[in-house]
Amino acid sequence: MFKGPRVEIYTSKQIINAFKPDLAAAMIRDGLIAYSAGKVQLAPAQHIKFDALEADCVIKSGYLEGDKVFTVKVSSGFYQNPQQGLASNHGMLIVFSARTGVPQALLLDKGWLTAQRTAMTGRLVAEAMAPAEVEAIGILGTGQQAHMQLEALGEVQPCRKVWVWGRHEAGLNAFCEHFRDMGYDMRPTQDAQQLAAACRLIVTCTPSPHPLLQAEWIMPGTHITAVGADRKGKQELSCNLVALADVRVADSLSQSLEFGEFSHAFEAGLISQADVAELGNVLAGKLQGRQSASDITIADLTGLAIQDVQIAKSVLAMAE
Amino acid sequence: MFKGPRVEIYTSKQIINAFKPDLAAAMIRDGLIAYSAGKVQLAPAQHIKFDALEADCVIKSGYLEGDKVFTVKVSSGFYQNPQQGLASNHGMLIVFSARTGVPQALLLDKGWLTAQRTAMTGRLVAEAMAPAEVEAIGILGTGQQAHMQLEALGEVQPCRKVWVWGRHEAGLNAFCEHFRDMGYDMRPTQDAQQLAAACRLIVTCTPSPHPLLQAEWIMPGTHITAVGADRKGKQELSCNLVALADVRVADSLSQSLEFGEFSHAFEAGLISQADVAELGNVLAGKLQGRQSASDITIADLTGLAIQDVQIAKSVLAMAE
Repeated sequence: MFKGPRVEIYTSKQIINAFKPDLAAAMIRDGLIAYSAGKVQLAPAQHIKFDALEADCVIKSGYLEGDKVFTVKVSSGFYQNPQQGLASNHGMLIVFSARTGVPQALLLDKGWLTAQRTAMTGRLVAEAMAPAEVEAIGILGTGQQAHMQLEALGEVQPCRKVWVWGRHEAGLNAFCEHFRDMGYDMRPTQDAQQLAAACRLIVTCTPSPHPLLQAEWIMPGTHITAVGADRKGKQELSCNLVALADVRVADSLSQSLEFGEFSHAFEAGLISQADVAELGNVLAGKLQGRQSASDITIADLTGLAIQDVQIAKSVLAMAE
Repeated sequence: MFKGPRVEIYTSKQIINAFKPDLAAAMIRDGLIAYSAGKVQLAPAQHIKFDALEADCVIKSGYLEGDKVFTVKVSSGFYQNPQQGLASNHGMLIVFSARTGVPQALLLDKGWLTAQRTAMTGRLVAEAMAPAEVEAIGILGTGQQAHMQLEALGEVQPCRKVWVWGRHEAGLNAFCEHFRDMGYDMRPTQDAQQLAAACRLIVTCTPSPHPLLQAEWIMPGTHITAVGADRKGKQELSCNLVALADVRVADSLSQSLEFGEFSHAFEAGLISQADVAELGNVLAGKLQGRQSASDITIADLTGLAIQDVQIAKSVLAMAE
């Protein structure tokens, strides 16, 4: 150990064990509302690229004006790591005092909190935008984010019938097995149209570069949360589907139109900036996320440092 | 302590005790050469402001292409901290593997390494640009950076006669006392013209917003290293002095012309981009830092994340 200012260190195991979803979701909600109200400082993300390794590192910093703390997050993705038995994602969230600048805590979460704050935001979106009755939930993707999104929905959504789409049978089977053990009625499929025909609450959480869902497949009254498009070159919904929707909500209007799920329809001239609402304003009740039972609604989550700030605060509050 | 990947933590005391100036200077030299050769990734700095406290935080990240590590530096300045008995500057330098993204070391240096890498760069500049014979060294400023610059010069410059300028007698006396104890012949002054008339190797290390040195005061053959102007609104040398110089060198051409010491003469149209050389090219021998004994030469140090990368590597190399 070391002398000097005390920096608390939390391992990913400690963070996962102490995590309280309700508190985290409530704080992320507050953060998104503050962001849309213009009360958050978010520095433009820093990117370092390691081309020879198909790897990158992103640094995101955020501060909610007047708050006691601010955070700096370093997250790396080194996709050849598994070849040597290491996880692809690493990094940490660092919490500093906004009164003195002194570092207070290191959250060595290896990306877990980033995945979790995205899932918590998916939960907030579902509460605000999903139809009143959901006969089946649809999940596209079978990775960590797909797991977390479905678990997070489980806290606010009574439906336990779930269609899951994936490209590979092994991933589908593992996903289904996990949730069957938790009492879910699981329906795996490799046909996204089949999923769309059955589900009115859909979450897409894939790294897909091409649309997976088409406009004509989607039932009236469906809500879709699109999580995958966090940088240029990713797309999960067809432009026609985005254009067809009655309500479009993004965590960040500017990010969504620049590189998120709505950027493709925006660039094609099918939607304008005025056609997208910001999630914080919906959560604050300033704008409606759903106006009628038959609305098709879409939420695009691109990721914001204020979510990191708020989930870090929730972890520190739990640890106190 | 914690489980998981081992992150070595170094306190400022450990860092200061282990510090080897020659190794650090050599590595910073390599880093500046690589930067000017276009082999360094430096993300634009992130800034968070705490207006109510006159405080700020800067995040700088850097990676020398092909290197084993990259660094992220968080440095804060909270200038009301001393009122509660805390240092103004805090922060840390974090070293990550550039092969896997795994965090390797936290250098909790509270800004000491940033100050030291600037001083080491001043030393490199003096070796490359100072006149062959220096009768007296002039230091403007009496703070930490002034101390470090003079100590760093002592490693490469035999002259022990030093004029020091400051606004306050107490600061001047403390500075002189410190260096007299180390065998220096110290001459304090509150008149910068008097200093300029006696010194042909001058280092300005103040946060001044107005020029402290005028063109007509400077003797032929003088070298000046300007350290203070690290953001907009700072200036230590008059525009006429910058325009008069025979050689102008900047650690970063783009930063110097945007917000550094040379930005004022550049904006006034007195110098053009072609009138400024980059330090890495001088250190590499591609450009000359001094062409004749009577040249007036000026170097502007604005600060680069590659200096952080390199000094961090030198600390880790010492610790091995």
